[in-house]
Amino acid sequence: VNFVEAIARKRDGLELSHEEIEAFVQGASDGRVGDEQLAAMLMAICIRGASAGETQNLVETMRDSGALWRVGADYPAAVDKHSTGGVGDTVSLVFAPLVASCGVPVVMMAGAGLGHTQGTLDKLDAIPGFHPAENRARAFQLLDRCGVCFAAQSEEIAPADRRLYLLRDLTATVPSLPLIVASIMSKKLAVGAARLVLDVKCGSGAFLKTRKAARELAEALVGVAHGAGVEVRALISDMTQPLGSRLGCASEVRAALAVLEGKGDPRLRDLTLELGAEALTLAGHAPDEARRQLATRLADGSALAKFRELVEAHGGDPDEKQLARPQTAVTATARREGYVTAVDAEELGWIAVALGAGRRTSTDEVDPAAGVAVHARVGERVSAGRPLATLELGVRQVDGEGLRARAEAAFGIGDEAPAPAPLVLERIGGST
Amino acid sequence: VNFVEAIARKRDGLELSHEEIEAFVQGASDGRVGDEQLAAMLMAICIRGASAGETQNLVETMRDSGALWRVGADYPAAVDKHSTGGVGDTVSLVFAPLVASCGVPVVMMAGAGLGHTQGTLDKLDAIPGFHPAENRARAFQLLDRCGVCFAAQSEEIAPADRRLYLLRDLTATVPSLPLIVASIMSKKLAVGAARLVLDVKCGSGAFLKTRKAARELAEALVGVAHGAGVEVRALISDMTQPLGSRLGCASEVRAALAVLEGKGDPRLRDLTLELGAEALTLAGHAPDEARRQLATRLADGSALAKFRELVEAHGGDPDEKQLARPQTAVTATARREGYVTAVDAEELGWIAVALGAGRRTSTDEVDPAAGVAVHARVGERVSAGRPLATLELGVRQVDGEGLRARAEAAFGIGDEAPAPAPLVLERIGGST
Repeated sequence: VNFVEAIARKRDGLELSHEEIEAFVQGASDGRVGDEQLAAMLMAICIRGASAGETQNLVETMRDSGALWRVGADYPAAVDKHSTGGVGDTVSLVFAPLVASCGVPVVMMAGAGLGHTQGTLDKLDAIPGFHPAENRARAFQLLDRCGVCFAAQSEEIAPADRRLYLLRDLTATVPSLPLIVASIMSKKLAVGAARLVLDVKCGSGAFLKTRKAARELAEALVGVAHGAGVEVRALISDMTQPLGSRLGCASEVRAALAVLEGKGDPRLRDLTLELGAEALTLAGHAPDEARRQLATRLADGSALAKFRELVEAHGGDPDEKQLARPQTAVTATARREGYVTAVDAEELGWIAVALGAGRRTSTDEVDPAAGVAVHARVGERVSAGRPLATLELGVRQVDGEGLRARAEAAFGIGDEAPAPAPLVLERIGGST
Repeated sequence: VNFVEAIARKRDGLELSHEEIEAFVQGASDGRVGDEQLAAMLMAICIRGASAGETQNLVETMRDSGALWRVGADYPAAVDKHSTGGVGDTVSLVFAPLVASCGVPVVMMAGAGLGHTQGTLDKLDAIPGFHPAENRARAFQLLDRCGVCFAAQSEEIAPADRRLYLLRDLTATVPSLPLIVASIMSKKLAVGAARLVLDVKCGSGAFLKTRKAARELAEALVGVAHGAGVEVRALISDMTQPLGSRLGCASEVRAALAVLEGKGDPRLRDLTLELGAEALTLAGHAPDEARRQLATRLADGSALAKFRELVEAHGGDPDEKQLARPQTAVTATARREGYVTAVDAEELGWIAVALGAGRRTSTDEVDPAAGVAVHARVGERVSAGRPLATLELGVRQVDGEGLRARAEAAFGIGDEAPAPAPLVLERIGGST
């Protein structure tokens, strides 16, 4: 393959051959293709798009660029769950023990947060001693021991994606649908669970702002999973406001524990139950039975026990008192009375980043104690002076007053109650 | 300027601001923008195009990325000539002494050849001792001394173009019209002659295969020159067959001398006279008077004398006997009788490269003795066995028989004479 000719073909909107896609992916992982050629190809794909066949090819060659864990071969019932990233999205920390407590093994590869959405890896890192699996042997050990494995993205999985991901960030090619699909699915397929539940976030706080874009991504992800022989369900869920009421690493671990204890944020609980039901129906349960079993496991404490068990299996301390706590706090309050018409999830996410709960660049340190507690939801009636959010300050020196003003401005308050929005907007690839 | 945002704007087909173009060009010349970001921007420009305003901005910021020679300030009458590159295009070697012998100073920045078109710099290099000017002081000395200066592209002129040019080659972004215009015109404007004659080649042997593409480029070049206050004329000339009948460095110097001696290839002479007439009318001569004066200078030997003078001024030996000669030759002959319907200029150019007369990659050495002599033109009647071309072999070991077969196949022979094609297809930006 002459790689300049391959770039020229995609530049002109033609379909890349299997050999050309292989040259692209192999060249990305072994370094034989330079950054400038990868960048030109990424931009050509970003503008010209890719067919379903090209996307499938891209995903599978990226999958094959590194180690294959083949989880599905040893654990055919194991399920993987992936979220496209939201604010206050604590689902993974509840989903994993809850579904595992129903007898369905769960494997999840967690990523570090970047930008306004926080990553599951950072939240797990708030648990003292917690170590995600970094290779296949450790992952299988964890699945054996407790039926749940949280893995960290390692060098051995889809190395082509690692290089392309960094380049996309630099070259304004992040929003490309086939490139997003390739990045997500190459890693999922390399881990190799045979069942997959996808949570595609949609709305102002999500990467995908419109229903149309979210549906396109969900359909593309489902199509590629099917093409690779993976059973899959995708939900499109609301991200016009934060999902849970807590943003920040230690704070989200506590929020997860609250749900596992049968209390906690109702939106976080509801979406976790919806996704859990998808996982259980993939495992052969009837929808009603699935929902009943999930509710039972929450009520009888077995999901909470599974959480403690998985934390210990991963080397962590399950004692909630060991979690970091904020040093001090600043409260944002309502400037007028009325109905909450909007809660700007992206802005609250960035405020959390400013407090130290996330990363602006990949080298930033995350402070587990920092975060934002959200006290008001869209549709609630508030009086003037009522607390809307608490900014939880950790070790980082910040302009508390400036952030308070930004937090107050992140809440829209109006005279009329907005129409209620459903939490699950759409189901793709099957239904419970 | 956030450069990722600038790339995103061009990716989405929006117009870049002056500041964004400046960030691109400055970043290319001072290294602050990495290859991957330059490549992404090049691809976005290649696919999305650029407005006239963006192109003008790009040219002028690229011009200003290095030294400005401002030739027009000291030599307001000086003319520059540029060809987009053809096969057997020996015009510069005749044009420069001929126009200078009419009292119009000529400055030309010559480039090395790459691919199937040979470069003027390589042809000049075939003259023993010849050294093109490499800086402004030397260029002005040559203009003072003999009214002609051949300059080599130097590090100091448009450094942004040098980096972008290399990247375009690697990233399949060479065919972008605004990038071609920027590359050509940034260097012309940095040299700074106030008058410019352009020869845009069109046809199978040229970079631009269609009249539409050639016209678009010519109009864009003329527009940018006007925008920068340069008086300009452009011809679109035929490149469906080689211009002159000689390809190869020493051989083209001899072909130029033949025209200067009042003999030589009629097509090479005719196009040089057309371009010379444009230059003289730019200098204020009436068209008829211009043509008369050019013919006189050829006839009375003053153009030839000026050639010898300029060669000596550049340190070269004007003795034709000092030029390299081929070691041996292979003759390609007609396989049947009939009319020559096509002479594949690009294929003959590549055969010349294979013989050593040009470069496949920029690090190749050029053999001045190697080349191709073309004996038959489109429309000529030939008998079977009649010589069509002589492959002139220099020091390089080549497969003479294989090249002979390729050369024979480069001539189309049919039963009917093709319609004659004009040498000058169009004039843009004024007319003689």
